[in-house]
Amino acid sequence: MRDTPYLSVDERLLEVNLSAMADHARTIGVDLRPHAKTHKSIEIARRQLAHGAVGLTVATVAEAEVFADGGIDDLFIAYPVWAEGPRAERVRALASRVRLRVGIDSIEGARMLAQATTSGEHPVPIGVAVEVDSGHHRTGVEPAQAGIIAAAAADYGVRVDGVFTFPGHSYAPEARASAAHDEAHALATARDSLLGLGIACAVVSGGSTPSVDAATGRAAGGVLTEMRPGVYPFYDAQQWELGTAGPGRIALTAVATVVSVRGTRAVVDLGSKVIGADRQSWATGFGRLPAHPDARIIALSEHHATIEFADDGAGAPALGTRLRIAPNHVCTAVNLADELVVERDGNDVAVVSVDARGANT
Amino acid sequence: MRDTPYLSVDERLLEVNLSAMADHARTIGVDLRPHAKTHKSIEIARRQLAHGAVGLTVATVAEAEVFADGGIDDLFIAYPVWAEGPRAERVRALASRVRLRVGIDSIEGARMLAQATTSGEHPVPIGVAVEVDSGHHRTGVEPAQAGIIAAAAADYGVRVDGVFTFPGHSYAPEARASAAHDEAHALATARDSLLGLGIACAVVSGGSTPSVDAATGRAAGGVLTEMRPGVYPFYDAQQWELGTAGPGRIALTAVATVVSVRGTRAVVDLGSKVIGADRQSWATGFGRLPAHPDARIIALSEHHATIEFADDGAGAPALGTRLRIAPNHVCTAVNLADELVVERDGNDVAVVSVDARGANT
Repeated sequence: MRDTPYLSVDERLLEVNLSAMADHARTIGVDLRPHAKTHKSIEIARRQLAHGAVGLTVATVAEAEVFADGGIDDLFIAYPVWAEGPRAERVRALASRVRLRVGIDSIEGARMLAQATTSGEHPVPIGVAVEVDSGHHRTGVEPAQAGIIAAAAADYGVRVDGVFTFPGHSYAPEARASAAHDEAHALATARDSLLGLGIACAVVSGGSTPSVDAATGRAAGGVLTEMRPGVYPFYDAQQWELGTAGPGRIALTAVATVVSVRGTRAVVDLGSKVIGADRQSWATGFGRLPAHPDARIIALSEHHATIEFADDGAGAPALGTRLRIAPNHVCTAVNLADELVVERDGNDVAVVSVDARGANT
Repeated sequence: MRDTPYLSVDERLLEVNLSAMADHARTIGVDLRPHAKTHKSIEIARRQLAHGAVGLTVATVAEAEVFADGGIDDLFIAYPVWAEGPRAERVRALASRVRLRVGIDSIEGARMLAQATTSGEHPVPIGVAVEVDSGHHRTGVEPAQAGIIAAAAADYGVRVDGVFTFPGHSYAPEARASAAHDEAHALATARDSLLGLGIACAVVSGGSTPSVDAATGRAAGGVLTEMRPGVYPFYDAQQWELGTAGPGRIALTAVATVVSVRGTRAVVDLGSKVIGADRQSWATGFGRLPAHPDARIIALSEHHATIEFADDGAGAPALGTRLRIAPNHVCTAVNLADELVVERDGNDVAVVSVDARGANT
């Protein structure tokens, strides 16, 4: 018996999810480069590669360092890295030992990257991809401007791999298909802006977990050559509520114990320090219980989740009952844990290290 | 030069905050037992004790273990601990080496605690305090029921120290004083329900950081004997927006670099994996910038914070600029970090370990 709270991964569902996404990528004709920010685990990354992933996506130089140390040799930092100070030297060291691609969304950013890697007596190879904004309005330039940034990067002497976007506006009700459409349109415009300047564009990279169902690649005349879903190994309450995957596909849950009961309400011994405080405006609560689809987590503090159960006469579960909670956003929940407990046929069989927990720099 | 993002603590402000709260506790005549869930640091706990704190409050058995290992020998786990499985033995081991008080809010919880500590050949001393609900509606029984729980605990053979509450409804605009009033009223009722059954009630414990200004203790005829504020060493954007402490008292900030700029918007290289996703309904954004009080963090993802700057013609800060962000909720931000960088007179002078990071069980 393990003390709660902890994060549990159902190995069978993990494999179902890994396999299904790999099949989907093959079907639509794109390379799968999963975003490892979700699991932060070398073990799970290796499983993704075994299912046919071409490499990994990461969010930070520190994550890239962890996975490079884990022997993964093809990494894309899908982020406009500002390569200054110690980070410049870290990027250079990474590029010297793995095939590295880094995001850019400014001429200055490209210049800093080039300075970090191509200057001096021993230049190291680095690829860049220009980030474009396909509707999420975070980082990324207007798609038609991608060529200008790419041309500057090429002038600075770095390898231009192509273009990418994150259609994060797929994280809203009924927005999955339209976000995939926006993504395809923005990436086509961006690719053409490179080609128009005579710059090759081998990589056209997109894909969030909610939008990949509606994405198309080479097999259907689509623009994508690569997709970077992150959440799909585990899924979570957000994906459930968006309709990406039902509760039967949620492979990671937080296990908690009921510590206080009043009527139809129970409080369990986990909170935002275990499942994160993420709550989109459209979420129905602070997480969901796959085994109790009508229950709602109506309040969350650091070590308490208050769960309202359906008023069906049964009341709330008794003190001491163990419950499983799907976090709203599994990426931030995993980043709070040092390890994930892997369960097979109802038994804990292994512990997987969250190797890149806290790797933010 | 340290790569961003990281958490920085201004040592001078930290000392100002520690000193001011210790003075306030003395003035109103209560013992100060700070909640260590905020800083999770043995070093900062020692500073609190040096300022006169009588002991620490923690939220979990695991936090208690960390601080006991750090030599702190008077601990209150202000949580209705469910002492089953390995946790029962852990509570027993703790009680054998420090002066330990644990929360209860059910007869069954009291029985489990007693079984863990007083049964067998070598009973260990443990105190309990009954948690009552003063308006936050989380854990805790109705104040008038406290005596019944206390009587059961006494029958089971554990030491009854008194009663406690967390007036968490102080975390709302204009609610600080009324929450303190509710707290005093609930605790007086709870204390009287113990006394009415002939049970001594040495400890009457309350106090959240927003409500302590309006709390009264022995020095003013108040009911409190002890208060347990947590956030005050650092303060944060929530406390700023609640009016508890202005930006000039915020001792902890996350240091970030601008990586992308468009017009009056800048994106910096930190997100919910550094400052947490906490956002109360009344918050004006996902954190605040003490040096830019008019700026608002309008969007937050795992590694991006999108900041809208005032449209005063100056535009957003340039690429590469370093900015300091006060998290909305400092407790969850600290729990994401392995260390805090201590700054004195603008120089990094030390690194403090977040010893109890992730100590959730």
